[in-house]
Amino acid sequence: MKVYQDEFEISTSRRIQAIDITDRIEKVVGKSDINNGMCQIFVPHATAGIILEEAESGLLRDIENKVESMFPKGAGYEHDRIDDNANSHLASGFIGQSRVLPIKDGRIVRGTWQRPILLEIDGPRNRRRILITIIGE
Amino acid sequence: MKVYQDEFEISTSRRIQAIDITDRIEKVVGKSDINNGMCQIFVPHATAGIILEEAESGLLRDIENKVESMFPKGAGYEHDRIDDNANSHLASGFIGQSRVLPIKDGRIVRGTWQRPILLEIDGPRNRRRILITIIGE
Amino acid sequence: MKVYQDEFEISTSRRIQAIDITDRIEKVVGKSDINNGMCQIFVPHATAGIILEEAESGLLRDIENKVESMFPKGAGYEHDRIDDNANSHLASGFIGQSRVLPIKDGRIVRGTWQRPILLEIDGPRNRRRILITIIGE
Repeated sequence: MKVYQDEFEISTSRRIQAIDITDRIEKVVGKSDINNGMCQIFVPHATAGIILEEAESGLLRDIENKVESMFPKGAGYEHDRIDDNANSHLASGFIGQSRVLPIKDGRIVRGTWQRPILLEIDGPRNRRRILITIIGE
Repeated sequence: MKVYQDEFEISTSRRIQAIDITDRIEKVVGKSDINNGMCQIFVPHATAGIILEEAESGLLRDIENKVESMFPKGAGYEHDRIDDNANSHLASGFIGQSRVLPIKDGRIVRGTWQRPILLEIDGPRNRRRILITIIGE
Repeated sequence: MKVYQDEFEISTSRRIQAIDITDRIEKVVGKSDINNGMCQIFVPHATAGIILEEAESGLLRDIENKVESMFPKGAGYEHDRIDDNANSHLASGFIGQSRVLPIKDGRIVRGTWQRPILLEIDGPRNRRRILITIIGE
């Protein structure tokens, strides 16, 4: 049993943006030398998120539009008196800043259409960190 | 410390359906011989979910109705140009395809009304896989 | 590798209430003597939640208001025929009763504005339990 941790950075270009990070995640899992266990994908940011979705380009835009419509910007929030991103915080907190995937036989277990997506909700940002923690044997 | 993994399958009969899987999960935990740790319940599907809810029959229908009203089918999604299930993907990704429960003294820790529920969001399907990963000692 | 578990209780004073529990969580992590791994924060309750948010007082009220507007009380739910809290169950299940944080170099990894928040959704209650499970080395 061991713990393996790694991280990488992504820059984002729009206010709300869904970005497929599957290849980066799988590279980390490959380096971990852990065959069975759990892999946590985490963003240390209160205005971003992690979800698992099909990375079809139309669906990525649907995701961005849904974040916008469920958590509309500037809808009279109290937090907006001191900042302008209450909607980003609400979306990030409710959707979640982390997902956990099983590792089996040296690979992430995921459905064909289930890919880790970084959700930028208050961009653009030069630097969004993604931390991977893998525990297993 | 060790890792224990197991899986089972469920068939679903409706497009949106909430199904109590508590007994199946607890049987796996019982076989794991792990007394303290974490248990992850995961569906490798991008149009299903896992939540923890009271399994009262009226509430299961309320859950199904809420999925439908928060993520309405056919609401002009781009993904629907190539498929017809953008709403299922959005609900699955936002609600999440996994939950993690603590294991203590050989049992899942959960409140009286807190039961693992498989959420079918694009059924019916012959075969939905549920993977359980338990890490602990 | 080891598992460390601890818990504490919080009393709540309003029906919907967002309460910062960061200091309590970090005290537990400090006692765990685990330097690298994962920390799960879990409520064994089907009408409460855990989220990670900035703990600014205006935003805490925005969170409470958003729970109320996304999951309105008494909106014709079937579960309300036998109880009056279907909205609390729906919010709790969809938002989630748990979050997982990485532990690195003896500390929780979290962004500056990312603090564990207990979400009371069916209060006031004398006693809400928060269980912490830490796995690592």
